[in-house]
Amino acid sequence: MRGLTTELSEDELVAAIVRVLGEQPRTLRVGIGDDAAAWKPARAHLSLATVDALVDQVHFRLHETTPEMLGRKALAVSLSDIAAMGGRAALAIVALGVTAEIDAEWSRRFYQGMRDLAHRARCSIAGGDIVRAPALTISVTAIGDVRPSNMRLRSGAKQGDLLCVSGPLGLAAAYLRSAAPGQALRSAYESPEPRLAEGKFLGASRAVHAMMDISDGLSLDASRMAKASALDVCLDLDALRTHRPLALSEFADALDLMLYGGDDYELLVAVNARSHTHLARRFKARFGRELWVAGRFQPGAGNVWELADGDRRKHEPRGYDHLKNTRK
Amino acid sequence: MRGLTTELSEDELVAAIVRVLGEQPRTLRVGIGDDAAAWKPARAHLSLATVDALVDQVHFRLHETTPEMLGRKALAVSLSDIAAMGGRAALAIVALGVTAEIDAEWSRRFYQGMRDLAHRARCSIAGGDIVRAPALTISVTAIGDVRPSNMRLRSGAKQGDLLCVSGPLGLAAAYLRSAAPGQALRSAYESPEPRLAEGKFLGASRAVHAMMDISDGLSLDASRMAKASALDVCLDLDALRTHRPLALSEFADALDLMLYGGDDYELLVAVNARSHTHLARRFKARFGRELWVAGRFQPGAGNVWELADGDRRKHEPRGYDHLKNTRK
Repeated sequence: MRGLTTELSEDELVAAIVRVLGEQPRTLRVGIGDDAAAWKPARAHLSLATVDALVDQVHFRLHETTPEMLGRKALAVSLSDIAAMGGRAALAIVALGVTAEIDAEWSRRFYQGMRDLAHRARCSIAGGDIVRAPALTISVTAIGDVRPSNMRLRSGAKQGDLLCVSGPLGLAAAYLRSAAPGQALRSAYESPEPRLAEGKFLGASRAVHAMMDISDGLSLDASRMAKASALDVCLDLDALRTHRPLALSEFADALDLMLYGGDDYELLVAVNARSHTHLARRFKARFGRELWVAGRFQPGAGNVWELADGDRRKHEPRGYDHLKNTRK
Repeated sequence: MRGLTTELSEDELVAAIVRVLGEQPRTLRVGIGDDAAAWKPARAHLSLATVDALVDQVHFRLHETTPEMLGRKALAVSLSDIAAMGGRAALAIVALGVTAEIDAEWSRRFYQGMRDLAHRARCSIAGGDIVRAPALTISVTAIGDVRPSNMRLRSGAKQGDLLCVSGPLGLAAAYLRSAAPGQALRSAYESPEPRLAEGKFLGASRAVHAMMDISDGLSLDASRMAKASALDVCLDLDALRTHRPLALSEFADALDLMLYGGDDYELLVAVNARSHTHLARRFKARFGRELWVAGRFQPGAGNVWELADGDRRKHEPRGYDHLKNTRK
């Protein structure tokens, strides 16, 4: 690959990116090319913003994926946070740190992957910054909005609420562990789907008290929701076994992958216990997936317990820690 | 320094950062600690967003600055883009890629530097992401808003407009060149002041047709404004000499530093020629600095000219290119 250094200036690359992105949603007033993006925020909504950073050799391996997949995933993980607030996406701002081996063609394909997901999510790619860096570094800030009554925080869980999950767990982690991963594992890892429609649906339900996305594993993220809500949570390992995805059958430690694997980007919700059956039925009818029960909130101070074969014991939360860069 | 790996988890570091930041402005509904920040956008305003990335050894040298200075500067360069749109700041979202040598104390001081500027700009530090990276990488997304009638783009310059600059040029570049730089040069480089009040003032004037900030040097940024406005621009080198800052007296190539240095973060504005005297008088009274004339827009197609001693010749725009990582 020819590096950008010998090929393109920043202005030329930005112009190429603008061409790839094509027409953008009309709420965007000023897109790429000015000092800042400008858009008209939705009236009476709250605005939302979040950032996720991905670094080569830490969060992905450049040579084991395609630029399109990487662009798509970088946007997906940020949109997942907007989904977890019950919101919808409006725009994304991308900071790219590139090495000499990233060329214009790579960048074009990266933005193409981003564009296709952005288009479906009705999200503009509205600006960014491109700089030199010693490793490919991608930071995507996603901006969206939410009707205030639909917003759900981590801290809203109530005593007796069921801890529910919007889809399968452990697949992305299994992909990284498997010598010959199948397509189901690969696509769970490479192209996670931000649960935007699910988040909007769940946020609109009064039975849903708290919501977040599972990025660092059920164990650690459930612990975070419990702490934020000043409650204990008890994980039901028998229920986890029941909801083990088919694609994990070959894994002896499937339960560990579901608990500690991370990179799932499913929604974790605290649901009023009496409303769960009704809500899960509507969820299934709408999205074709179970809103399955993985545990229950109890009085406490942020501790996690686990229930297996009728036996209840202390659970030590662990998962992906972005600083320790390892499973804790 | 002890690295974070042996010291703190991500959750513990985030808690420490929240303590450093203290109380945040009241428009922020949800700050650090949830999936996304949430805020109430200003009614009838446009929202603005921009990102700037800084990488160790590319944009700064970790061992030649303090964490406070670096935090302050990272926020300042992003706020400068909000200023250049005529807007005011609302919040900032920070993605930090840290190496093993960054410890909790360093992070605390970094956010402290950011906090002090944020406080003055009435801007919340509302969220972020912290990951491992091979070099310290800082991306700050600044979000703000602007009254639509006050927003100024790069593309608004009109034939005959004067190209004006909101303050001194070349100081930051001179700092990097000087063997024994004085305080004026050091502080221009280390703690540039985002011209938020100036941007708001200029955006509110009907005499101002276009605005941007000078980050990559007058030469390259004037060329960008000319291209965006589909005009030529002629730089007045005699005027540049007249407005050479005192602190550049010792530099034989002061003019080059002013033209190509970059890292200035002054505002570049296209001003109606007949209104300039009046506007500059009000600007001087309010900010104590000249709104000085550096050139003039002419019919054309994005070319740059230079005028010196009555002689007009083609000017080759160059400056800091973030991809070539060098003066072009």
